Amino acid sequence: MSKPRVTIVGAGLGGALMACYLGRAGYEVELFERRPDPRSGKVVGGRSINLALSIRGIHALHEVGLADQVLALAVRMPGRMIHAPDGRLSYQPYDKDPDRAINSVSRAGLNQLLVETAERMPNVTVRFDHRCQDVDLDGGRAVLVDNESGAEVRSTGDLLIGADGAFSAIRARMQRLDRFDYQQAYLAHGYKELTIPPATGGGFRIERNALHIWPRRSYMMIALPNPDGSFTCTCFWPFSGPNGFDRLQTDEQIMSYFETHFPDAVPHMPTLVDDFKTNPTSSLLTVRCAPWHYRDRVVLLGDAAHAVVPFYGQGMNCAFEDCTELNRCLQQHVDVGTALASYSAARKENADALADLALHNFIEMRDHSGSAAFRARKAIERILHRFVPGYTPLYTMVTFTRTPYSETVRKARHQDRVVLWALLSLVFVVGVAVILAVLP
Amino acid sequence: MSKPRVTIVGAGLGGALMACYLGRAGYEVELFERRPDPRSGKVVGGRSINLALSIRGIHALHEVGLADQVLALAVRMPGRMIHAPDGRLSYQPYDKDPDRAINSVSRAGLNQLLVETAERMPNVTVRFDHRCQDVDLDGGRAVLVDNESGAEVRSTGDLLIGADGAFSAIRARMQRLDRFDYQQAYLAHGYKELTIPPATGGGFRIERNALHIWPRRSYMMIALPNPDGSFTCTCFWPFSGPNGFDRLQTDEQIMSYFETHFPDAVPHMPTLVDDFKTNPTSSLLTVRCAPWHYRDRVVLLGDAAHAVVPFYGQGMNCAFEDCTELNRCLQQHVDVGTALASYSAARKENADALADLALHNFIEMRDHSGSAAFRARKAIERILHRFVPGYTPLYTMVTFTRTPYSETVRKARHQDRVVLWALLSLVFVVGVAVILAVLP
Repeated sequence: MSKPRVTIVGAGLGGALMACYLGRAGYEVELFERRPDPRSGKVVGGRSINLALSIRGIHALHEVGLADQVLALAVRMPGRMIHAPDGRLSYQPYDKDPDRAINSVSRAGLNQLLVETAERMPNVTVRFDHRCQDVDLDGGRAVLVDNESGAEVRSTGDLLIGADGAFSAIRARMQRLDRFDYQQAYLAHGYKELTIPPATGGGFRIERNALHIWPRRSYMMIALPNPDGSFTCTCFWPFSGPNGFDRLQTDEQIMSYFETHFPDAVPHMPTLVDDFKTNPTSSLLTVRCAPWHYRDRVVLLGDAAHAVVPFYGQGMNCAFEDCTELNRCLQQHVDVGTALASYSAARKENADALADLALHNFIEMRDHSGSAAFRARKAIERILHRFVPGYTPLYTMVTFTRTPYSETVRKARHQDRVVLWALLSLVFVVGVAVILAVLP
Repeated sequence: MSKPRVTIVGAGLGGALMACYLGRAGYEVELFERRPDPRSGKVVGGRSINLALSIRGIHALHEVGLADQVLALAVRMPGRMIHAPDGRLSYQPYDKDPDRAINSVSRAGLNQLLVETAERMPNVTVRFDHRCQDVDLDGGRAVLVDNESGAEVRSTGDLLIGADGAFSAIRARMQRLDRFDYQQAYLAHGYKELTIPPATGGGFRIERNALHIWPRRSYMMIALPNPDGSFTCTCFWPFSGPNGFDRLQTDEQIMSYFETHFPDAVPHMPTLVDDFKTNPTSSLLTVRCAPWHYRDRVVLLGDAAHAVVPFYGQGMNCAFEDCTELNRCLQQHVDVGTALASYSAARKENADALADLALHNFIEMRDHSGSAAFRARKAIERILHRFVPGYTPLYTMVTFTRTPYSETVRKARHQDRVVLWALLSLVFVVGVAVILAVLP
């Protein structure tokens, strides 16, 4: 059998990386993107500015030969910096090993590097400004419209990869198939990005090597460092109601709210009011579907298959792991249908596990990460991790290992039970010992 | 404020009943239906042949003056008849009161009566053969295509009611709205309809006044009586795997399977093999979404808002209750937007509760209804219902009262806890009494 010719719809992070993988493996690939070429100078917006890259993403970038180049431009974040309402700071390392860190990278920069890497391969063509308007599932073809000329373009491949994001046109077509399961679920919270610019004369206004969190129980703000010395802050607040975005309408309301709840951040945010009024409030979506493939013709990856909320910092890492696994399945199985079914079955379970982890971690970050109990639990986890062979905290497994997400959850549950039993046994033994000691 | 002009898309059971409600209340109503007029003689298929009508549906029909007429043509089913694998029968009444019954009605006959009732009102127009192809949510308008002429027709109302079923075009448009939650989930089981014809010379071949169940643990067959003496049987089996539809390909496989698993039914099914091969195997879908309305312009009802699996016999009853409630909200609130928001909020919770009840009842019917434990539990429920004031079994509340579905679930949980505590207390008291009695 010869290799299928591949069409990828969507040249975001996942689609562009998949083009790199398949281009290196010798496939003929055409990669289409709805948005204009960012190098043309037209503004591309609407997505987060920076992302946390961790081991799963790094592994994928390593496989396409880009890891060193990306990490050289990233800002390391080996821990969280918690900002209390009174401005007090407390630092929590992410791992017992201070060398382990997540990495703040620029979405736009990484995306451009991936597209340019794919574009340089002779067997890969990239076309911007092409919007997918129809899908022929049985043919594995997409019908696109050239935004410039208005002309209709038909893809020529026989395997169609839907990497077209949370609002995927390809998945929307699959949704009409009999027995296609689908769910889209929004949070009552939205997000808005704000900026902490570099210090006057350069450098970082707050700790450079940390992911900053201002946990305020039912809502929070976070900030990730950028290489230029700035931070991108993100407010995760309810759309409406108490502490909701809709409560802040006037300049005075905005300033006074931030001065009350994020007092230590305000002096570092000179453009706060303008940013708050100008930048959009976006929604937070979880998408689940099954199956991720149609026969040997169509397959989904990244947000198109499993948009997750951003609170575990794993959206991009999971999308990159999709590419690693789809590439591996295509190399392993001669039959494309078998490869897609095997990929779909294995990844679906893991994406579901991640979706739940990400939803749960929102509550953890905003409600608990500021509490003494949370700090104590994290400290105990680090002690167990250091001294108990085989014990690995869940966050470490998700972020610093490539253990499948669903397995990290099972392992974490198991070791929690073991620790609980060990503690109970210890209490029992100590109790018995005390009784024996005091007996006459 | 004057009454809005109303467009209803979908003249199935829910849409046609809504037209009757609003027609009686003096609204200008246009009702569109994708399928041809059944009176034109063109075949309309694809849905179940008969349905179980219970109190919620009867109440709605009563409000539009049709209840007596419908019940006169229905076959009463005051209980379940369980068919064991060896052909033994056992009868379980649905309620302590033998006068309480669910009613087998013909979908086609009831639908036609509702459409004709609406059509007779001067302020209601009905147009068949019109397919909804686009929706203007902000205008509350639908764009339809006349299947006969191919002409495009624009609805003229300013309130659009989506009663266009589980694959609703109107809901599909709403799904693209920001923060619209949506889920479609299929069962691994499908269904196929078969027939038990009337006895030679007329009359019923098996007990007329019962809903027949052949529970076989992971799968089942049921049969509902029709007024002409026939029964419509429905097999609920997995699509594939053990006991799956895909296992039966040849005439011999079909006959031998039925003779093994449903031996007492086979003599009554002379067209079994042909029916099995000819009739489609259809899928079973649960749809949930929120919100059910868009401003004061668009609102969903019936399967379009909440398709449920058929195992509680409540799909039509819930759709009819939607009509009752939407009509009530429109009469109660002068502002249409407030009426729709109030309807949507109240019904969503109840439809979710019913969806869960229906999924759960599949397991109950197929796995448990044949067991001695199930019969014992039902007998205890009837005794409690008869002798304990305030105790009402869940099935009774759902089927024979108009208590909101979500409240039936809460009440059932509460009374289960009370019964459990009462039993434990009784055991304790008896235990103490015994100990006191045997003490020297």
